[in-house]
Amino acid sequence: MNADLLQPLQRSLDGRWAAVRADVRDQMARFAPADPDWSREEYRERVLHLTRELARTGQPHRGFAAEYGGEGDVGGVVTAFQALGYGDLSLLVKAGVQWGLFGGAVQVLGTSRHHDRYLRRIMDGELLGCFAMTETGHGSDVQHLLTTATYDADTREFVIDTPEPGARKDYIGNAARDGEMAVVFAQLVTQGETHGVHAFLVPIRVDGKPAAGVEIGDCGHKAGLNGVDNGRLTFTGVRVPREALLNRFADVAEDGTYSSSIENEGRRFFTMLGTLVRGRISVAGGAGSAAQKALTLAIRYGERRRQFADPATGEETAILDYRVHQRKLLPLLATTYALTYAQDDMVAEMHRLQEPGAAPDEKAQRALEGRAAGVKAASTWHATHTIQTCREACGGAGYLSENHLPALKADTDVFTTFEGDNTVLLQLLAKNLVSDYGRSVSRLSKMELARFLGGQAVGAAAERTGLNRVRVKALDPRSRDAQRALIADRSEHLLAGVARRLRPALKKGADQFGIFNAAQDHLLAAARAHVDTVVFDAFVAGIERADPAVRELLGKVCDLHALSVIERDRAWYLEHGRLTASESRALTAAVNDLCAELRPHARLLVDAFGIPEPWLACPMLADPAVETSTEDPTPALVG
Amino acid sequence: MNADLLQPLQRSLDGRWAAVRADVRDQMARFAPADPDWSREEYRERVLHLTRELARTGQPHRGFAAEYGGEGDVGGVVTAFQALGYGDLSLLVKAGVQWGLFGGAVQVLGTSRHHDRYLRRIMDGELLGCFAMTETGHGSDVQHLLTTATYDADTREFVIDTPEPGARKDYIGNAARDGEMAVVFAQLVTQGETHGVHAFLVPIRVDGKPAAGVEIGDCGHKAGLNGVDNGRLTFTGVRVPREALLNRFADVAEDGTYSSSIENEGRRFFTMLGTLVRGRISVAGGAGSAAQKALTLAIRYGERRRQFADPATGEETAILDYRVHQRKLLPLLATTYALTYAQDDMVAEMHRLQEPGAAPDEKAQRALEGRAAGVKAASTWHATHTIQTCREACGGAGYLSENHLPALKADTDVFTTFEGDNTVLLQLLAKNLVSDYGRSVSRLSKMELARFLGGQAVGAAAERTGLNRVRVKALDPRSRDAQRALIADRSEHLLAGVARRLRPALKKGADQFGIFNAAQDHLLAAARAHVDTVVFDAFVAGIERADPAVRELLGKVCDLHALSVIERDRAWYLEHGRLTASESRALTAAVNDLCAELRPHARLLVDAFGIPEPWLACPMLADPAVETSTEDPTPALVG
Repeated sequence: MNADLLQPLQRSLDGRWAAVRADVRDQMARFAPADPDWSREEYRERVLHLTRELARTGQPHRGFAAEYGGEGDVGGVVTAFQALGYGDLSLLVKAGVQWGLFGGAVQVLGTSRHHDRYLRRIMDGELLGCFAMTETGHGSDVQHLLTTATYDADTREFVIDTPEPGARKDYIGNAARDGEMAVVFAQLVTQGETHGVHAFLVPIRVDGKPAAGVEIGDCGHKAGLNGVDNGRLTFTGVRVPREALLNRFADVAEDGTYSSSIENEGRRFFTMLGTLVRGRISVAGGAGSAAQKALTLAIRYGERRRQFADPATGEETAILDYRVHQRKLLPLLATTYALTYAQDDMVAEMHRLQEPGAAPDEKAQRALEGRAAGVKAASTWHATHTIQTCREACGGAGYLSENHLPALKADTDVFTTFEGDNTVLLQLLAKNLVSDYGRSVSRLSKMELARFLGGQAVGAAAERTGLNRVRVKALDPRSRDAQRALIADRSEHLLAGVARRLRPALKKGADQFGIFNAAQDHLLAAARAHVDTVVFDAFVAGIERADPAVRELLGKVCDLHALSVIERDRAWYLEHGRLTASESRALTAAVNDLCAELRPHARLLVDAFGIPEPWLACPMLADPAVETSTEDPTPALVG
Repeated sequence: MNADLLQPLQRSLDGRWAAVRADVRDQMARFAPADPDWSREEYRERVLHLTRELARTGQPHRGFAAEYGGEGDVGGVVTAFQALGYGDLSLLVKAGVQWGLFGGAVQVLGTSRHHDRYLRRIMDGELLGCFAMTETGHGSDVQHLLTTATYDADTREFVIDTPEPGARKDYIGNAARDGEMAVVFAQLVTQGETHGVHAFLVPIRVDGKPAAGVEIGDCGHKAGLNGVDNGRLTFTGVRVPREALLNRFADVAEDGTYSSSIENEGRRFFTMLGTLVRGRISVAGGAGSAAQKALTLAIRYGERRRQFADPATGEETAILDYRVHQRKLLPLLATTYALTYAQDDMVAEMHRLQEPGAAPDEKAQRALEGRAAGVKAASTWHATHTIQTCREACGGAGYLSENHLPALKADTDVFTTFEGDNTVLLQLLAKNLVSDYGRSVSRLSKMELARFLGGQAVGAAAERTGLNRVRVKALDPRSRDAQRALIADRSEHLLAGVARRLRPALKKGADQFGIFNAAQDHLLAAARAHVDTVVFDAFVAGIERADPAVRELLGKVCDLHALSVIERDRAWYLEHGRLTASESRALTAAVNDLCAELRPHARLLVDAFGIPEPWLACPMLADPAVETSTEDPTPALVG
């Protein structure tokens, strides 16, 4: 029966861009995994070669505009990128830098003068470039970058400068070895005035040597991703023509007059940044693929690896049959499913907003940015935790590079802090939510407000008594509605609470930093809870779209995901009178039951990710040594 | 004021073997850190060289018997070993294999015929050896190893064989490149009978080539510890003399007659294993040092790194001043303190039991083994989590090898699964606790039993109502007694519960596996809770021994440790009526307050670990680029 479910399950997971996934799977098999013994130089050379190979497959072209030889298939290109996460993650990141960040910035921040000149060469991997935003001193607070681009009206050039060591561009992919050009983010200064951060196209390397005035450093060895040449750029009076400004949102006339379609400097900057949302969505997807791969490895190993004999039968037990092992892996598998659907939803929404001819929708774009921030944080932390757990679940075998888990762990580790530090991203999401919440409350009619406050008051009473007086019936842990109510209620309650706490900061003379800082953990909890709701809803919607044959199984996976999320936060539910003590304990029992029920389907559930077998092959899953030890080998010793 | 506290604080942490620590600190400064760009071969060569250098310092000799040139200072050698954790962890592990595992096995499992011949050469690092226990198919269940040592009375030799691929010795340190000899664990067979696992001294390499009948493989590249040459050993009819048996607990006469001072095969095996407890204690200590180093790096960085301007002052805020950053690091710092004291206690107890002339104390030895299993699991998981958090807390800088965190993470990662998989170790501890509990309950008089059951009943009533009727006064989170009561009560309650759940397994025909498996997570929770109590008690005792000048500060650290442990498990306390909802929320507030109170002392608290500065030096803590960015650099952009 299980085998019959594999196809419909994989179809459900593959979603709208199934054809793209199929394409990439075929192509992936051609890219052999990295050898961990390569020197840094060999590895970089190899990844450069693979990047050019990838250009030849045509996948990177998908995302670019049709008039330059692309397909305008924004969702497709991100889907293709994600699938690279099954393979060498250095290739994924190098490709992300080249086509997502560098190419993406040229496309969305530039205009036809940049597109005509560069896009084809970028797509074909002939012009390799960098995305030079982060500085040594400013990573999260990119609005306050220090690099300057000062317009010189006499020569009609911008002069790029690194005013101090902390303004050095740092961690820049493609910079140390291969990049010829960089999109450099710098404070635009003209006619003695600064207009905030803008992007400039700056040649950094000519015939393999640093361009005049550009000093290039190497970030050296990293925890992982050593196939990517991260470097440092320092600029001293580097002159680029006026046209080097990526001028979609702002321009400088020949005489130095500044103009922009967006008056407010902050808003302008965040509009520019917002167009780059694709990077975060891609990282979230790459993390998802890595988590899928780690779980596939660990679950297959957990079915093969046997340890300790069952006293009744004398047969050694597969480690995945132990409750603790199921507890370690299966809730993570369930959440990986949930995040897969959430990711697909987010990609589809991005596609809708960014596909050629899409009408601008500022509100939806802002919501997407918030969602991308939250899902990126959730997805990358989940991947880090999942891969770590899978490594441990494979014991010594999981520590050997030949079994893939070490590279998965090391390569994805930076995902939690690049393309936006997760903690900072969650705050960004939380601030969006709080201001939306403020607006929605202020729009309520008097009657609505009374009803709303009434609802809050019931909640508060429940909290004071520590008992739930809102629900009459005891919780049914497998009720989808009850799960939804608990998850969403927590999100709303946290948001209302944090909005209340932050309100005093609006008063004149208030200690804004103090108020904000005291509420910071509350703010983050609100953001995380919001993401929990988004992810849950996406999973539920995904099940409704799935083949009826697999809905029951997916339903159990969704139960396990939802209940382990609620279980994780059950202290909150207890503290706030949303769960009674016995309901809370019943929840834990339900998670255990679900682990046991899903155990027989574990292999099917990971196989449905459809990871190409060559990328999973490894001695711990192939060695007959492991197989043969599954028989009870020591009959002479028993008794 | 802070500076005055540094010395007494460090003295308190240094504890009984402060002189050894001082020695090692002086010596450590001479060992330069590894270059992450070394090839595997270069790195192994380098670590071999350092291992020999280490022998020259005389530190490894400390632990061996005085009659062979050692000092019999069991506690001292483990303390010295721990301090190696501040430096290159490959050296720590190579040294642990050579002197702790290989040398330790020869000393404690061998007799004078082995000691006379080998101990000096082992101590001096002239004879390098392996500890060949783990097999590909059996890692945790070492009682069922498959390698055989069959006695041939005709030649008075043992014949060592690997009967199938799964019996290959795997992950063996010192095997792939440097080891000449191995302590091989194998099923002893003589006169047609098998007597269980015993240890044999087997030459594996002669003049740099594998010995006859020995096939040596290489585990290749690993996630970390690449300076250690882990390998695989396969034996085909390898003959060793009868005297190769390490015969402290059992022997085979020339005619093949087997004899042992311990009748029961299982008990004999666990007695032999128990003598090797030093390995686990050492790994726990090494993990502690690594966590200390990661926190020192992250907290120093958190004080220097500034990001986002305070709206009131325009000055950028040090990231350690953000509540969320404090929340990430300071509770981990507090627990690292607690574990440091717990480790010292455990080392002292081991010293008491194992120092020359110590009277055998089987009960205390068994308790030590349980404690070592539990503290090793707690300490290594804590290190993994702490180092991961510190890496993230340093953002991109934390991902660069030059800033030490990547090697710390990768090298220590295997600590959670080697020297006993943590999950298996916690089960071992739990089973000890349950059987001790059974014995203590069965010894109660009728009256005691009634009183005991009465106590349980009150607890049960509290649980049913979900309200705490036991305590009358509201919880004072800073009361040491209240903390103790909560932590210890949880441990006792979990233990009583799991003992009840396991009792039916004693019945004839019971589904032992099923009963055990259903209670497995409960069992692990009981073990962890027990360790929490042990660690808390050790911290409290350590504070009492400390200089009065630092007791107040240490008290706050202890509060933060205890409350974050209780906070982590507050769902349990709520479910079981030990905390009311408002007490639980007050706990979270108290943790926040303590973070703010300890923030000004964070630097002092990490400096007191006394990690040699050369081992902490790195660009993220030295680069003036980071320093200069602390001024507000963009006044023109404000407003």
